[in-house]
Amino acid sequence: MHIGFIGLGNMGSPMAHNLLKAGHQLSVFDLSQPAVEALVEAGANAPGSVVDIARSPAELIITMLPASAHVKTVYLGEQGLLAHVQPGVRLIDSSTIDPLTAREVEALARAQGNPMLDAPVSGGTTGAAAGTLTFMVGGEQSDFDNALPVLQCMGKNIVHCGPAGNGQVAKVANNLLLAISMIATAEAMNLGVALGMDPKLLAGVINTSSGRCWSSDTYNPYPGVMDNVPSARGYSGGFGSDLMLKDLGLASEAARQTGQPVLLGALAQQLYQTFSNQGHGNLDFSAIIKLYTGVSE
Amino acid sequence: MHIGFIGLGNMGSPMAHNLLKAGHQLSVFDLSQPAVEALVEAGANAPGSVVDIARSPAELIITMLPASAHVKTVYLGEQGLLAHVQPGVRLIDSSTIDPLTAREVEALARAQGNPMLDAPVSGGTTGAAAGTLTFMVGGEQSDFDNALPVLQCMGKNIVHCGPAGNGQVAKVANNLLLAISMIATAEAMNLGVALGMDPKLLAGVINTSSGRCWSSDTYNPYPGVMDNVPSARGYSGGFGSDLMLKDLGLASEAARQTGQPVLLGALAQQLYQTFSNQGHGNLDFSAIIKLYTGVSE
Amino acid sequence: MHIGFIGLGNMGSPMAHNLLKAGHQLSVFDLSQPAVEALVEAGANAPGSVVDIARSPAELIITMLPASAHVKTVYLGEQGLLAHVQPGVRLIDSSTIDPLTAREVEALARAQGNPMLDAPVSGGTTGAAAGTLTFMVGGEQSDFDNALPVLQCMGKNIVHCGPAGNGQVAKVANNLLLAISMIATAEAMNLGVALGMDPKLLAGVINTSSGRCWSSDTYNPYPGVMDNVPSARGYSGGFGSDLMLKDLGLASEAARQTGQPVLLGALAQQLYQTFSNQGHGNLDFSAIIKLYTGVSE
Amino acid sequence: MHIGFIGLGNMGSPMAHNLLKAGHQLSVFDLSQPAVEALVEAGANAPGSVVDIARSPAELIITMLPASAHVKTVYLGEQGLLAHVQPGVRLIDSSTIDPLTAREVEALARAQGNPMLDAPVSGGTTGAAAGTLTFMVGGEQSDFDNALPVLQCMGKNIVHCGPAGNGQVAKVANNLLLAISMIATAEAMNLGVALGMDPKLLAGVINTSSGRCWSSDTYNPYPGVMDNVPSARGYSGGFGSDLMLKDLGLASEAARQTGQPVLLGALAQQLYQTFSNQGHGNLDFSAIIKLYTGVSE
Repeated sequence: MHIGFIGLGNMGSPMAHNLLKAGHQLSVFDLSQPAVEALVEAGANAPGSVVDIARSPAELIITMLPASAHVKTVYLGEQGLLAHVQPGVRLIDSSTIDPLTAREVEALARAQGNPMLDAPVSGGTTGAAAGTLTFMVGGEQSDFDNALPVLQCMGKNIVHCGPAGNGQVAKVANNLLLAISMIATAEAMNLGVALGMDPKLLAGVINTSSGRCWSSDTYNPYPGVMDNVPSARGYSGGFGSDLMLKDLGLASEAARQTGQPVLLGALAQQLYQTFSNQGHGNLDFSAIIKLYTGVSE
Repeated sequence: MHIGFIGLGNMGSPMAHNLLKAGHQLSVFDLSQPAVEALVEAGANAPGSVVDIARSPAELIITMLPASAHVKTVYLGEQGLLAHVQPGVRLIDSSTIDPLTAREVEALARAQGNPMLDAPVSGGTTGAAAGTLTFMVGGEQSDFDNALPVLQCMGKNIVHCGPAGNGQVAKVANNLLLAISMIATAEAMNLGVALGMDPKLLAGVINTSSGRCWSSDTYNPYPGVMDNVPSARGYSGGFGSDLMLKDLGLASEAARQTGQPVLLGALAQQLYQTFSNQGHGNLDFSAIIKLYTGVSE
Repeated sequence: MHIGFIGLGNMGSPMAHNLLKAGHQLSVFDLSQPAVEALVEAGANAPGSVVDIARSPAELIITMLPASAHVKTVYLGEQGLLAHVQPGVRLIDSSTIDPLTAREVEALARAQGNPMLDAPVSGGTTGAAAGTLTFMVGGEQSDFDNALPVLQCMGKNIVHCGPAGNGQVAKVANNLLLAISMIATAEAMNLGVALGMDPKLLAGVINTSSGRCWSSDTYNPYPGVMDNVPSARGYSGGFGSDLMLKDLGLASEAARQTGQPVLLGALAQQLYQTFSNQGHGNLDFSAIIKLYTGVSE
Repeated sequence: MHIGFIGLGNMGSPMAHNLLKAGHQLSVFDLSQPAVEALVEAGANAPGSVVDIARSPAELIITMLPASAHVKTVYLGEQGLLAHVQPGVRLIDSSTIDPLTAREVEALARAQGNPMLDAPVSGGTTGAAAGTLTFMVGGEQSDFDNALPVLQCMGKNIVHCGPAGNGQVAKVANNLLLAISMIATAEAMNLGVALGMDPKLLAGVINTSSGRCWSSDTYNPYPGVMDNVPSARGYSGGFGSDLMLKDLGLASEAARQTGQPVLLGALAQQLYQTFSNQGHGNLDFSAIIKLYTGVSE
């Protein structure tokens, strides 16, 4: 299939590479020339602008952008996709943005005859490279079915979350819970160790008890408890604290708009902001445990 | 084996019954006469005081008491166990108390020749009745090995957590994480639903993603997501909010003593206190989701 | 002076009346016809639209609107002020909105020759009626000097806070501190009373000690401590909890945009959201003390 | 008058010196020999033990000790005051401890014929040296009247807060409010400055508006806003963060015992704990603003 791909950052680039590997024809665009060139070397063509992508013969256009503002520009701007794309061309936005903007863009696209899905991912750059991302997808069932084979070139766990915007809803709700669980795991591990318990043993007990969570049993933030996780390598790689901070900003804004209190979520957001201001925004989000370990680290 | 058992409340009574069922000889004591009589009818004898239990031929004495103050009285009082028990008699305290008190009592017991374990449980009254409790045990390895067959009459998952007091440490750390996870699950579920997502579908996505935790996949607080959990029956039964409040009090006090910050934990404690003051302390601890659902419930 | 006035809500109406009383000629507009008619009866004329106000001979136009979205529409819309106003006409926006939007609108107005001030108020409907509002004003010094006599018809304390947007900054910072102080006063008063102290005596000690704050010495939330404050009349009147919730939303959004943590502020926002969801959003913001007093109230 | 004085730390020493200066005869005790010697040089005598103080001809004994545990030892221990003091000798404890312990000790003292007051102070080492402390006093009115002339040798603002323990209640409630106000002032100042406002101007606006509080108008934590406060001298001197942390521990423990939620207070406690763990416990408590200013400071 001929696919357009806009946004070749840390996530978008490996995703686009995986589409090429799967045999799809690719037209790509990004403001960063080196990123574009790397894809061209791998076999993509690079028409030069968003408008060119919109007017290319691509049947499907995928976007992977940093934030709502970029999504609005790329889709709704005068030089954007909706103003120039042919009716019938399908659209997938894999950016993580707020659900309300996602729904607004989708409604405009659908109204002019372009079926659209929101499909934010989790799994980080590692998952993007390995093609094992989780896609949380919002939109019509038939559009989801149609997109599934393409998404499976880039991910392993493709979940339909309901109508338009619900991919973003699932992502924001999951990451809200994730951030809180991670900080909670950090508090519990540090408290247990301070009270004299071996961290591995403590994690073992928690992981077979009611405190069990992904942050404790799969991604434990306490150094030495697990191998092959960021806490085993100085918190490099993984999912950056500043990205978690961004997602918590989306969650608390969505909460404000719907009048839902998120007491722990709001505090988690502030703790990641504090951690970021201390200069640690580029560390994996499990590094938040450093807030709890005092001056020595 | 001849076993003494002190403390026949909601947890202690079914635990004692399970020891009888397993064929042990039991001497019991509690301030509540009906609780004692029920055990006597089932085959226990009731010597009438803590001192009498201490002086009975029991080789092992188990205590299951509400809080540190009771443990101090029963073990360290003039009419308490340590003042009257024979050397060599083994002691197990299954109360949930602060680790420092547990270690203080254990050190005094050991010094006078009475090996002692701290062995708090999780699993609630259901687990106590079914004999499927988890025991988190602190103390010497040989004492643990020795106690294992008896504990297995009352529980299924018996974990040795290290030296004296570490059973309490594991319990307090696990429940700190549990309380926060539960509130976080409530926030994430409510936010997702407010944003238009089906609660079952949302729980399904979370449970296969990084937000996965025991509170979401085994004990979901959102009504209608799971059967056979308190949220499916108006939050009756289960583990009472006031008991969680007590455990969070132990956690924050232990955190204060060791100088470990527990930012989310302290907020969780205050939220359970607020919930309790609103008259809901007897509901299962997953009912904390009601704090987030406004006036309608 | 001939003044245009747009926005005749609970605050705008009494402010406009005070301008009339001071002898100014007034052209007013609001979507609510009864509000307009009340001003017309008092001597204003009502040209019928924002565009008509823009084209009226008014030398100064004042706006008092609910939120940023309304300000953007009234100033920047096709039927808005900037598109139709004569160069040289001065503009004052007394709405409480986010500082960044205030600066954006001001820059556009100034660029086309319309000096603009942001001048949010505090003092509530009582202050608006009595003409004793505090105005926190951002903009050029000469524009401030020019506007001062008009603002003094509506307020008593007129403070120049620096360049454009700084009126909003001062408002948002002050109200952030106010909300937290109010909740803190509620916590301190309730804790002291629970520990056996007379509330009036406690307030007296605090008010001569380092805990002293406006919320304790001028607007005490504990019933019976002061007369003539909302806590003395069931929390009616005053500054509504939902308005404080709105201001905390502005504060936390501004904090997010500038990367400033507001840990207590974020928690205060969530507590007002919780309180609002419990059905109390129309009560004075000092009623937040009810969150702390349990079921009986 | 002949007065006994036990506890010659940073606060107790200057207080004792002020009693000497006022012409009282003093018998002093402390575990630190240099502290005792400094008082002896100034004219006190040093009988050598708590028991000796108890048996001295002092009509009044004042204690100034670090925490509840020391108060219990000095008053209730076998070598303590109550076991050896003559009936009729009056007692004043100026330590800051939890109200329940204060009441327990007072009841025992009164029962054996020794009228007792709790009289914790605020004002720091500066106030202690200058004799300008605030005393918050709990106990009988007649005992308060009797003690007033002596307390006036050491302080300026002597407040009777009601029956025994209420001095401690007033102190704990005031400092809870103070800690929260200080952090809130730090948040508001930093947010305002980040949004482009001059800190002095912002403080000026707040101090004449509803955000006004002692932390903003008398002890502003933002450097450069005020002279002669800790923020003007690198946060040296003043009231140490670790002392505030101790008082917040008393507040949250008293809150737990009475079932009063202190949501902001609990978070404030955790923030001071975090700050202390980062190595800043010895800085003035207004230095908490450093938590908000990132790595550069």
